[in-house]
Amino acid sequence: MEIFIEPIGKLINEFSKLPGVGKKTAQRFAYKIIDMPEAEARAFADAIIGVKRKVKYCKTCGNFTEEEVCGICRTRDSGVICVVKEPKDVAAIEKLHEFKGVYHVLHGVIDPLSGVGPNDIRIRELLARLQTGEVKEVIVATNPDVQGDATAMYIAKLIKPLGVPVTRLAHGIPIGSEIEYTDDVTLARAFVERNRI
Amino acid sequence: MEIFIEPIGKLINEFSKLPGVGKKTAQRFAYKIIDMPEAEARAFADAIIGVKRKVKYCKTCGNFTEEEVCGICRTRDSGVICVVKEPKDVAAIEKLHEFKGVYHVLHGVIDPLSGVGPNDIRIRELLARLQTGEVKEVIVATNPDVQGDATAMYIAKLIKPLGVPVTRLAHGIPIGSEIEYTDDVTLARAFVERNRI
Repeated sequence: MEIFIEPIGKLINEFSKLPGVGKKTAQRFAYKIIDMPEAEARAFADAIIGVKRKVKYCKTCGNFTEEEVCGICRTRDSGVICVVKEPKDVAAIEKLHEFKGVYHVLHGVIDPLSGVGPNDIRIRELLARLQTGEVKEVIVATNPDVQGDATAMYIAKLIKPLGVPVTRLAHGIPIGSEIEYTDDVTLARAFVERNRI
Repeated sequence: MEIFIEPIGKLINEFSKLPGVGKKTAQRFAYKIIDMPEAEARAFADAIIGVKRKVKYCKTCGNFTEEEVCGICRTRDSGVICVVKEPKDVAAIEKLHEFKGVYHVLHGVIDPLSGVGPNDIRIRELLARLQTGEVKEVIVATNPDVQGDATAMYIAKLIKPLGVPVTRLAHGIPIGSEIEYTDDVTLARAFVERNRI
């Protein structure tokens, strides 16, 4: 006999698909749903359906939106474009309330080992946005890993002939951490990118 | 401007209601849903609705079931009843494939500080099950905390006049752990419940 009756087993299975959720956690989540009032569980299910039905990608920047063009592209300074790998990076940067420009979501990075080339991510769309001549800077904010670095280099090389300055986020010792505990690669990078004080 | 568009914000909010899930984790879960094929997301939502619609409590033992009486009550030896606090305790014990009897889910424990008295949990229903004279043992498997202990004592006192033996799960040092790292209360309990070898 199965330990869980079919509807509960099914729900545990669904929750197990979420990142970092094992059987045990999925089980706790399922019990929580069982304990919820019917209306609350329905709202949960509706939120899942709603996100799939309503969320599209912005025609301009590729970020999540409910309209054709997202709120950021419609209202902000399009003179500075911040290039990121994924929509979640936009959310991380927006949380700072520091960056006032617009974004360009690549939906991936160049990764030959996984068969992802420059034409598989939204680089062509980025170049198209630079044709207007309005863009004064492109900030590449891909992750500081091999793929992120390669993608940043590739983009910089492509954009150079257009005369638009391309910058990259600084790498170095995280604020509040200690030199002793900084990993070697980061520490070496902090030396290379050292600034005059 | 909100960092997340409304349908994503809503879903993050729903995921945040799950036990141990903060904003950051809820966000990762929401992105996972966005990345799912439509059919998969729909199956997820259906599983949530399904669990609320199909899962009922067994008329006999109080465990989760899809029918009037659960599969365990219908097919197993009703001579031994294991009393637990919640349905999740049944799942934990079933996983062992050791216990061959039936269960009785109290749906709570006696906890005067939270206003939960003996009449607020399924103790009356347990006594009713003992009237047939078929029950040869009641194993109380409530948690080893103040409320669990009090509930076990209360049940034992009620059942004693009926002549049915009441036992309780053993407490002691967990197998594979070390005496040095066993907490004081458990270690003291292990002395009290020591066995002749």
